Amino acid sequence: MIKIDIKKVYDEQKKYANKEITVAGWVRSVRNSKNFGFIDLNDGTCFNGIQIVFEADKINNYDEVASLLAGSSVCVSGILVLTPEAKQPFELKATKVKILNATDEIYPLQKKHHSVEFLRDIAYLRPRTRLFNAVFRVRSVAAYAIHKYFQDNGYLYVHTPLITTTDCEGSDQMFKITTLNMDNIPKTKDNKCDFKEDLFNKKAYITGSGQLHGEAFALAFSKIYTFGPTFRTENSNTKTHANEFWMIEPEIAFCDLDGLMDIEEEMLKSVVQYVLTNCPVEIEFLDKFVQNGLKEKLEKLINSNFTRIDHKDVITILKNSGVKWEFEPEYGGDIAKEHEKYITKYFGGPVFIKNWPKDIKAYYMKVNEDNETVAAVDLEVPEAGELMGGSQREEDYAKILKRCDEMKVNKEPIDWFLNLRRFGSCEHSGFGMGFERLVMYLTGVDNIRDSIPFPRTPGSCQF
Amino acid sequence: MIKIDIKKVYDEQKKYANKEITVAGWVRSVRNSKNFGFIDLNDGTCFNGIQIVFEADKINNYDEVASLLAGSSVCVSGILVLTPEAKQPFELKATKVKILNATDEIYPLQKKHHSVEFLRDIAYLRPRTRLFNAVFRVRSVAAYAIHKYFQDNGYLYVHTPLITTTDCEGSDQMFKITTLNMDNIPKTKDNKCDFKEDLFNKKAYITGSGQLHGEAFALAFSKIYTFGPTFRTENSNTKTHANEFWMIEPEIAFCDLDGLMDIEEEMLKSVVQYVLTNCPVEIEFLDKFVQNGLKEKLEKLINSNFTRIDHKDVITILKNSGVKWEFEPEYGGDIAKEHEKYITKYFGGPVFIKNWPKDIKAYYMKVNEDNETVAAVDLEVPEAGELMGGSQREEDYAKILKRCDEMKVNKEPIDWFLNLRRFGSCEHSGFGMGFERLVMYLTGVDNIRDSIPFPRTPGSCQF
Repeated sequence: MIKIDIKKVYDEQKKYANKEITVAGWVRSVRNSKNFGFIDLNDGTCFNGIQIVFEADKINNYDEVASLLAGSSVCVSGILVLTPEAKQPFELKATKVKILNATDEIYPLQKKHHSVEFLRDIAYLRPRTRLFNAVFRVRSVAAYAIHKYFQDNGYLYVHTPLITTTDCEGSDQMFKITTLNMDNIPKTKDNKCDFKEDLFNKKAYITGSGQLHGEAFALAFSKIYTFGPTFRTENSNTKTHANEFWMIEPEIAFCDLDGLMDIEEEMLKSVVQYVLTNCPVEIEFLDKFVQNGLKEKLEKLINSNFTRIDHKDVITILKNSGVKWEFEPEYGGDIAKEHEKYITKYFGGPVFIKNWPKDIKAYYMKVNEDNETVAAVDLEVPEAGELMGGSQREEDYAKILKRCDEMKVNKEPIDWFLNLRRFGSCEHSGFGMGFERLVMYLTGVDNIRDSIPFPRTPGSCQF
Repeated sequence: MIKIDIKKVYDEQKKYANKEITVAGWVRSVRNSKNFGFIDLNDGTCFNGIQIVFEADKINNYDEVASLLAGSSVCVSGILVLTPEAKQPFELKATKVKILNATDEIYPLQKKHHSVEFLRDIAYLRPRTRLFNAVFRVRSVAAYAIHKYFQDNGYLYVHTPLITTTDCEGSDQMFKITTLNMDNIPKTKDNKCDFKEDLFNKKAYITGSGQLHGEAFALAFSKIYTFGPTFRTENSNTKTHANEFWMIEPEIAFCDLDGLMDIEEEMLKSVVQYVLTNCPVEIEFLDKFVQNGLKEKLEKLINSNFTRIDHKDVITILKNSGVKWEFEPEYGGDIAKEHEKYITKYFGGPVFIKNWPKDIKAYYMKVNEDNETVAAVDLEVPEAGELMGGSQREEDYAKILKRCDEMKVNKEPIDWFLNLRRFGSCEHSGFGMGFERLVMYLTGVDNIRDSIPFPRTPGSCQF
């Protein structure tokens, strides 16, 4: 008999009612009395499990089944009975319970509450918990929603390279990669590492951003997006930093800053809507156990208009707020976490902060006519802070060269990128969205380590 | 006036007929006589461009427009006129041509045939050519088709980690990553590299496979897939090797080798069908200019039944073929390129070769009852050779420990992976598909360097 997914049982319960079906999965819990018992069986194809009813006179291994511990794997055949009056919509009256692999007491996930810290230490098992079942399904569905939004809207998906010798984030934040024997590094005459012996014959890194390469593709396909892993070496142990994370970086030709904000807003609403539609049970669970009000927050976002405000006006609001800040807001300065929080609360929803002081932003951003600010925009969302960062790019060859010089950017490794401004240059804009930050926003989990399957943070690269 | 994508003009030409519209893009070519001329304008949103008609008495910059060179960017407003009798379905009679950025003679992509080798040296510009426009759109559409297939069928998309300290491909094939100063490596007492000083406090790599981590998720969600970059250090300059490539690695619980082949076959057919449906113009172009018969090959695949045959029977066929082989086929040995070719030709289509000699396969594959072979399967397709490789995994804890010992696999870094066999283990199987190999198969390009946006191969890490 062919095993079917428990999700399929939920989706087509009427079709299977009173029929014999076979399911397989992992035991969450077993309750039993003398002659009958219940298994809460989960196969991970959907959030909810199926209730198995097993009776001493129906199966030939009652005692073994009754003594199964959490985490054991079983394959169960039985008759599906709809139970519209009960808590669960149906149950499976077992005719056969095949024990595939019985766990014992050393199984780390016993039926009790485990802290997220404990679960991080068994990251290879934590997807079996309800919390991570919900979080990682939302993650998967959100990833697909992003692809769907961009593909439906005519964007090209580009795999920008991971290994690179140029990078827009600056090489001091990047991991070096090498095939050299680290115990015995070949040396040049002046006693430096001789990268000529390395696989690419030069120093190479793994990337911190696909933007530069994305721009090259945007200037051919008009609308592109990347979705891939990125890396930073930051030695920082906070709830929002990881050394490996996934990023989405769309880049759009013939698009200015206003057009960019339109896209960011539309995309985010579309992804949130898709997740609400496709993960209702998960969102409900997360709302109940992780972040009260999560569902309302997400629904509100879809129906809100995102505020668009200049950086300098944000500073004015902060200065006039009467709040005693830890970091004093400055017209020429960055915006701290406490300011982000205040400003999204002030406007009661997502806020685009645009036109930032040019000195604190990157060389490739378009300098505005005031010659003081650049056409950059950060999207701040309630609770999660900065979710996206983008800008209109400097498209003028002479101007970007000048900015490189002013900001002491080495032009040589990015000459091809600069050349894009000579060969059919045009107005273009792009943004980056950290995917883990989105997952945190969508699920309410407050630590990046719980939003990614196997987190990598300083000193921590297990599994 | 709002600029629209040229794709939109194709999709909704009746709606826009005789209306004024604005498009923007890059000039492919300009032809002109004294008072009127034509621009072939492309914005990359679809394979075909739009023909712009410009006339001296209609626009105020006729001479400048007439002298535009290939690669220049322009924004054009005009009246869309349907031309059902002509080669192209419509043309745009310009009322305004705004020159955004005019190229000069140094623009490397002049209107003539360029070799793929030349184009690799300007990888940041080659997406503007017709060939790479077609290849990279097929790549994008195929990537989405893969996501769509798995999501529609209830698989969870997992982002397995890139940075890892364990790997199923063996660390000698992996890049090391480090934040150490390579010019001045810190040393241990016995003069080795002191990885305690590195960001993760130990030696770390970028991954060659997400399988091990994927298995952990399959044993929680039943059906999962990965889709991400992978890395190998192979110092090999062939048409089919790159040091960075993308891979799809599905892993399915409660699934044996037969079930796995069913999934591989269904998935491949679904992806090919999606590409044929969504990239008809690209496939036609590639069929004409890159691989004659491409379209027929793809259509044939959809309607074929893939052969399933044991490795030993393949060897018998090869031995009885009367062919003088460069590499003599052996019952205990691998299958060479020449054999792959013969066998797909012999069966006239894709062939699953299964049950391989255990000594040439990995420790995690399930040993068959004959104790000679493992439940592994390679899918060979005509012309492209091995497209997927998979196996049923050894689910028995004692047996996999034994295999580790027999094959001298260090169990310590993979203890968590081995533990999966103690905690609710079950029959499970998975496969890997190299995405570039699929793109090569779908587009007919015969060099991996032309299937990926910015190829990384030994000695070559430009851009």
